[in-house]
Amino acid sequence: MAQKPSIPKGTRDFSPLEVQRRQYIMNIIRKHFELFGFMPIETPSFENYGTLMGKYGDEGDRLIFKILNSGEYLKKADPKVLEDKNEQKLTPSISEKALKYDLTVPFARYVVQHQNEINFPFKRYQMQNVYRADRPQKGRFREFTQCDADVVGSDSLLQEVELIQLYDNVFNDLGIQGATIKINNRKILAGIAQMIGASDKLIDFTVALDKLDKIGQEKVKQEMLEKGISNDAVEALTPIFSLSGSYDDKLATMKELLKDSAEGLKGIEELEFIQNLLKDYNFKSVTLDLDITLARGLNYYTGCIFEVAAPQGVKMGSIAAGGRYDDLTGIFGLKDVSGVGISFGLDRIYLVMEQLELFPDTVRAGVDVLFINFGEREAAYCVGWLSRFRESGIKTELYPESAKMKKQMTYADRNEIPYVILAGENEIADGKLNLKNMRTGEQQQLTPEDIITKLTD
Amino acid sequence: MAQKPSIPKGTRDFSPLEVQRRQYIMNIIRKHFELFGFMPIETPSFENYGTLMGKYGDEGDRLIFKILNSGEYLKKADPKVLEDKNEQKLTPSISEKALKYDLTVPFARYVVQHQNEINFPFKRYQMQNVYRADRPQKGRFREFTQCDADVVGSDSLLQEVELIQLYDNVFNDLGIQGATIKINNRKILAGIAQMIGASDKLIDFTVALDKLDKIGQEKVKQEMLEKGISNDAVEALTPIFSLSGSYDDKLATMKELLKDSAEGLKGIEELEFIQNLLKDYNFKSVTLDLDITLARGLNYYTGCIFEVAAPQGVKMGSIAAGGRYDDLTGIFGLKDVSGVGISFGLDRIYLVMEQLELFPDTVRAGVDVLFINFGEREAAYCVGWLSRFRESGIKTELYPESAKMKKQMTYADRNEIPYVILAGENEIADGKLNLKNMRTGEQQQLTPEDIITKLTD
Repeated sequence: MAQKPSIPKGTRDFSPLEVQRRQYIMNIIRKHFELFGFMPIETPSFENYGTLMGKYGDEGDRLIFKILNSGEYLKKADPKVLEDKNEQKLTPSISEKALKYDLTVPFARYVVQHQNEINFPFKRYQMQNVYRADRPQKGRFREFTQCDADVVGSDSLLQEVELIQLYDNVFNDLGIQGATIKINNRKILAGIAQMIGASDKLIDFTVALDKLDKIGQEKVKQEMLEKGISNDAVEALTPIFSLSGSYDDKLATMKELLKDSAEGLKGIEELEFIQNLLKDYNFKSVTLDLDITLARGLNYYTGCIFEVAAPQGVKMGSIAAGGRYDDLTGIFGLKDVSGVGISFGLDRIYLVMEQLELFPDTVRAGVDVLFINFGEREAAYCVGWLSRFRESGIKTELYPESAKMKKQMTYADRNEIPYVILAGENEIADGKLNLKNMRTGEQQQLTPEDIITKLTD
Repeated sequence: MAQKPSIPKGTRDFSPLEVQRRQYIMNIIRKHFELFGFMPIETPSFENYGTLMGKYGDEGDRLIFKILNSGEYLKKADPKVLEDKNEQKLTPSISEKALKYDLTVPFARYVVQHQNEINFPFKRYQMQNVYRADRPQKGRFREFTQCDADVVGSDSLLQEVELIQLYDNVFNDLGIQGATIKINNRKILAGIAQMIGASDKLIDFTVALDKLDKIGQEKVKQEMLEKGISNDAVEALTPIFSLSGSYDDKLATMKELLKDSAEGLKGIEELEFIQNLLKDYNFKSVTLDLDITLARGLNYYTGCIFEVAAPQGVKMGSIAAGGRYDDLTGIFGLKDVSGVGISFGLDRIYLVMEQLELFPDTVRAGVDVLFINFGEREAAYCVGWLSRFRESGIKTELYPESAKMKKQMTYADRNEIPYVILAGENEIADGKLNLKNMRTGEQQQLTPEDIITKLTD
């Protein structure tokens, strides 16, 4: 009995058109990464268990895919642990590798491991798949592609300015108009926590605030109260939740509110510096918006944080994100290396572009020309020409069997092949080929050289 | 205490230069795959456990990386199996996914699963990583990249002819001269087995013969004897082991030897057909050689088989391989779909090209131009020009800090950046930039527009 074929939940097969469209997006992102001076690296699909565990919080640890050891993996397992069916204790003894959960932690590991070969400041990009045992839903998969650009070894805010321009260039080149780069600064959040007297609860404060988009103001406040932040403190947040106006207006209001917090004012100053360097820059596709409630879940951020929202009318979580972290490589033993980076979510950008119909028609699968197969002798005549067409850069195929004409033409139609070439007895005798334009139906008997010229014009 | 960072055995980090070189090879392979009419697909990194297990023999099953289930994966495990530490029985109950071992089986699964969307004959290519828990050695890794092109749904030998030309074009474009495509036909092997009276031991015969390269004639004969093939039969192989001469000579000798085997003669006929269609083809890089002892380990091959040996003087196993299989999709319930395909081993091709120094100097990491950072005011002046340079397709970066000149120039040197731009007070006053050629040391004060013209010429 044959198996009914399927693939694991949350994973996907990509058809030729989908691969071409994904490549189209990745090529544009890659092009701009390189124009901005980022260099590619790649890390393995799986890392040592200890490299990943404990880096993403308890929830992250749970969502990391672990790889079972080979061979007699139970040999050294504690019988008591097996008897108790204690997975938490057993797992580290039967799994020494895990699939990567994001590109950032493996990158930090890479920087520390290769620190003697790296020329700092190190600007690297990385476009690879990551894996999460998350519950699949729209725009959320168990295997997906991240496209990251980071600079480590420089705390210059020029990087933040450049990364904002990089976002703008990528989205412009993809044709995505109207995305919003939301920006905030962790130092401002620390300042707010200080101002409301909740500095000791900064992480709880940030984690709760991060959920504002999803659960709303009331529930965020409730969570803060549950975490032991005082009622007065929570109430003091009200003006911040309702902050409005331009980037400059909001910054001015916050500057006043945070006047007693040195750290908060430092955050304000950083955002002013960035705004100032961008004042002559003409944004091509995105809007930059100060969002004081933007928190980002990840604990390693310490300075500016970014999140890019899809254009209005497209229902999709954030399509890109990023921020500055002052000590990510510290966990692997290299202290005081500041970094800042951004990440594009390929899979979500794909969905946005699909919904907005932004893929150009030129991005297609399939060849430029199909040679019809009339039989052994005719096919042999065509084989010689195939090479010449391909050498001229024309994607060319010969139908492999001398099947019925209708079948071959249907094949061409279904694969949206724009031209078909018919070479029967007459054409062979004349040393010519009959070119049919599949869109217009027009046919012309031409020399192969003329056809090549026509198709490569 | 910080962890000392490392990566799992048999995996690799790729530096910027390595990624660029790998991309260079992949782009050439991709280009020719597409010129020959192959369309890209991608399948997930992991498949369902049952999709992969049992498809590669016992050895293969052992080398497949299994992924541990999430959560309380021991809950339903049989306590007896746990007590006995019986891995073989436990594994299927705690692992429902496995990393892909090659691209061929997932492709067969894809074809069956998507048969209603596919327009046959289906020419697909796939360039993805595969995973094997094999013992690492030179040219053998636990994560490596395969580049496969297959046609399914046609038994036309025109495909074999095209695939040979595809090999030739790819190796030519990579600059690899002198590789040998060894060709044979499984039907000839079946004919030989028949001729020597060992038809009932065809698989043992093929498996032993496949080791000829590695263990030599005597040990192959010994293995055949151990598998119960008669002494007379094994001795009858001697003329085949010592077959020599041109492709045509060897074919003529074999035709005589196999005159009583219909299947063997069919194999000969197929190789004649291929040779005949290639007689006017000018090989650009490779030699086609008939190797009657070529067997290929995989059991699914039924017709022509290929293996490409690196140029003489390069110690490396095969760098590409392939063959025809008549019923690969049968295991997933779709019968009678003939296919033929070839696979390029990216990692080995890389090692060959490195050894032969075939990577062009133009394949490099790093930007075209570095703007030196003289301070806040000067940097702000440069920021405006960065965008213009990048819009003109010039890879450009600004050193992020106003560090000492020596430090910035060392950075440019180490990253092999060909041009550096210096913009100090004078240049700002004149609206110019000072362009330094890092190879010659020559400096010129030019307008930014002139520099852009110069660098994009």
